[in-house]
Amino acid sequence: MNKLHRVCIIGVGLIGGSLARALKRADFCAEIVGAGRNEATLRSALELGVIDRAESDFARAAAAADLIVLAVPIGAMAAVFQQIAPALSAAAVLTDVGSAKAAVIAAACIAFGKVPPRFVPGHPIAGTEQSGVAASFAELFDGRRVILTPLPDTEPEALELVRAMWERVGARVSAMDSVHHDAVLAATSHLPHVLAYTLVDSLARLGDRDEVFQYAAGGFRDFTRIASSDPAMWRDICLGNRAALLTMLARFSGDLNAVVKAVEAADGERLLEIFTRAKQVRDRVMER
Amino acid sequence: MNKLHRVCIIGVGLIGGSLARALKRADFCAEIVGAGRNEATLRSALELGVIDRAESDFARAAAAADLIVLAVPIGAMAAVFQQIAPALSAAAVLTDVGSAKAAVIAAACIAFGKVPPRFVPGHPIAGTEQSGVAASFAELFDGRRVILTPLPDTEPEALELVRAMWERVGARVSAMDSVHHDAVLAATSHLPHVLAYTLVDSLARLGDRDEVFQYAAGGFRDFTRIASSDPAMWRDICLGNRAALLTMLARFSGDLNAVVKAVEAADGERLLEIFTRAKQVRDRVMER
Repeated sequence: MNKLHRVCIIGVGLIGGSLARALKRADFCAEIVGAGRNEATLRSALELGVIDRAESDFARAAAAADLIVLAVPIGAMAAVFQQIAPALSAAAVLTDVGSAKAAVIAAACIAFGKVPPRFVPGHPIAGTEQSGVAASFAELFDGRRVILTPLPDTEPEALELVRAMWERVGARVSAMDSVHHDAVLAATSHLPHVLAYTLVDSLARLGDRDEVFQYAAGGFRDFTRIASSDPAMWRDICLGNRAALLTMLARFSGDLNAVVKAVEAADGERLLEIFTRAKQVRDRVMER
Repeated sequence: MNKLHRVCIIGVGLIGGSLARALKRADFCAEIVGAGRNEATLRSALELGVIDRAESDFARAAAAADLIVLAVPIGAMAAVFQQIAPALSAAAVLTDVGSAKAAVIAAACIAFGKVPPRFVPGHPIAGTEQSGVAASFAELFDGRRVILTPLPDTEPEALELVRAMWERVGARVSAMDSVHHDAVLAATSHLPHVLAYTLVDSLARLGDRDEVFQYAAGGFRDFTRIASSDPAMWRDICLGNRAALLTMLARFSGDLNAVVKAVEAADGERLLEIFTRAKQVRDRVMER
């Protein structure tokens, strides 16, 4: 593949900033333009050498780029699509990093009148509980999975460019239907985040919360790490993947209720069965 | 404090084995006797140099010890108390490492006819998702908290010996009422374990579970780490701390239901409020 002339990353936070760093490491393009509404962030990204040029006008930033990556929170995607739609060149390929694909596809469809054939919805399954460009690092995608959710009309050439970009930054790329993506991510990511936030908030509203947390050990620290994630981003994801998340929440609540019933009944056999199945599955799937 | 002659640890698993190693490191006593029902475990503990002597008869193991530590699962405490009760010397101090204190105190009360004044209920808040003597290490208690829950009749001398033991292995020791201990631990440890087990089991029963877990990222790995803990031990803890756990489960279920309602209503403001409060509290209490 020829080296690209210019990649434009809209939203230079943890994901956008890390992608910019990783693209530089891979010498993927001649120039990386970072766009965003927050001037301090852009200045910081420039100073850190994460981007080559900063641009606060999204349309201008996108106009002359070969590849545009939307790395803004889900809730901001619609507005960005609308701002760049009139300026996009016919040859430009567009992708995003949103954690809920149906919502982003709908936003693109509304802004462009139809889903552009050179728009490749994408989702790098990577991140930390940190946010912001200062927390970005080039290795974030090394060995991580990226899911692309092309539509029937997506141009194969555009799909291949976006796939190539992620592979060049070290990721393993798969493609699947956006509905399936949203169901899978609701299960393994969105539901756990909701549970972690809810648990910490639940405990925080106990009367003696400082004392309670004082005795929390390593297990609690790991379990609640994702509750330190960016609240606005996760509000957006919950709203953006509402249907699939509600399905998983209903399923989980039913299962939790069964556990409550088992504890109430002092049904040790039932508890042991559930705990054993969970341990076996986790040991098998997570530690490989 | 004079060096003790003999410490007897009943149950040489992750906690018992780590305590034995740490006591050796601290040169706390002349001899550590390990007792347990599993001969292979005892042999392994001897071979690893974790204990000085192995004993399969609990009464004999406890008879000549200055300090006896019960490090068996909560569900096995009653039987061990009953076996050692007739053999215990009047001078011996007894303690345990169970995660639910009221249940252990009740078991001691039944076995001895009353709670022995030289029994100091204790709980080191330390562990990993591993179990077994092979996973034990001397540093497990370094900087960790240990909660002792003495009763009004507990002899101060016994309390001081147990406190001294934990301090010598690097732990920070506090004392509180057993009921309060059980409420605090239900919140920060027992409830999270139940949630992690329930989540993994819930996902494991999805039709496409292998594919689902394939896309799980670091957040999920951390969140579910405690679901790799020993299932029998956690069944015992759930049954041993049933009342306090049910209280916390009811509280959490109510709070989760409020989050479900907010997602259903697409109430972003409410979600942001909950997530923000959780993040602020976690950042403040866990990363200090």
